[in-house]
Amino acid sequence: MTTLIPTNRSPAAAYGYISDKDRYLARLKRIEGQTRGIHRMINEDTDCIDILTQISAVNAALENVALGLLDDHLKHCVAGAINDGQETDAKLKEASAAIARLVKS
Amino acid sequence: MTTLIPTNRSPAAAYGYISDKDRYLARLKRIEGQTRGIHRMINEDTDCIDILTQISAVNAALENVALGLLDDHLKHCVAGAINDGQETDAKLKEASAAIARLVKS
Amino acid sequence: MTTLIPTNRSPAAAYGYISDKDRYLARLKRIEGQTRGIHRMINEDTDCIDILTQISAVNAALENVALGLLDDHLKHCVAGAINDGQETDAKLKEASAAIARLVKS
Amino acid sequence: MTTLIPTNRSPAAAYGYISDKDRYLARLKRIEGQTRGIHRMINEDTDCIDILTQISAVNAALENVALGLLDDHLKHCVAGAINDGQETDAKLKEASAAIARLVKS
Repeated sequence: MTTLIPTNRSPAAAYGYISDKDRYLARLKRIEGQTRGIHRMINEDTDCIDILTQISAVNAALENVALGLLDDHLKHCVAGAINDGQETDAKLKEASAAIARLVKS
Repeated sequence: MTTLIPTNRSPAAAYGYISDKDRYLARLKRIEGQTRGIHRMINEDTDCIDILTQISAVNAALENVALGLLDDHLKHCVAGAINDGQETDAKLKEASAAIARLVKS
Repeated sequence: MTTLIPTNRSPAAAYGYISDKDRYLARLKRIEGQTRGIHRMINEDTDCIDILTQISAVNAALENVALGLLDDHLKHCVAGAINDGQETDAKLKEASAAIARLVKS
Repeated sequence: MTTLIPTNRSPAAAYGYISDKDRYLARLKRIEGQTRGIHRMINEDTDCIDILTQISAVNAALENVALGLLDDHLKHCVAGAINDGQETDAKLKEASAAIARLVKS
């Protein structure tokens, strides 16, 4: 989970790949609220099916965030590959592994 | 998302199907913290792959909560069916629909 | 993958839980044909995206078969539990494990 | 499902992105055999849980094929982008949509 950032570039320059950050941040706030809601539902012995429905909704919301970030990332990778060709193989390998984790999770 | 509770039973009696509530509540607290972590990672332009890894982890944690609750629920359904046979068909139909949503989410 | 069948019962009596077998068999025939189609697409260097689309379609079709069989199975379990109460715990445990494999696959 | 192939290139030249075709073809043959096995299990009223286990195995096998093809495809896309920069945006858009279908299937 460490992020190695080249010292001569700011993090934003290195990873500023996210196309609409405010929208992602708002979505994560909403997801956080939904997980708090699931906590409350369990605490109040809400009907199991309603809790499962909420969990499916949060999973779908998180998956959509992941797919959006991945799309931005692939565009960024390809642009980077055209500009400098550095580390593209390693980056694609990482991206494929992340896709596999998403598909299997 | 409404929960109809028979008036002559407390919620706990009606839905007190969760076998180890404290453990579930602790897991949800942890998941809520993880979603807050993802928010921070996006805000700080953390490397995309690390964010995707975290999202996969939260999805897996939520799925495990759902599978645990579902297991409790099915036991509860079957026990209820043996005791009074009421509404078992409707409950199983609901459970199957919830399983389908989980499998597809 | 062995199936232990009590010697004093026919397989159909023991596991005859499938509500519309002909329809399931037809669906499996179609799925088998789809996998043969994917083989051909790979052999002919068909565009990758089209192959991925076909794989997603086969996965969804298999999931729907699984969800249908599971629904039949749960009904059968509950009916069995009401009639003789034997082995219900073990059967539910097995069912929950199968659901978990489906959700994670 | 149509595949538009530039007329002045053979299909192999246009889409010859699969890194080890014989291995994929062998895997698909095995998957086809597994689906035939599921057909037989349903026909013989095999225990439901065993059928579900087989379906999960086939889904996992298909997913692994898809992830392998996708990995090859992304490498091919990036290489293509570096060489001619043509249609890269459209190709990535397609790839992201295919990833989304896989994650959601």
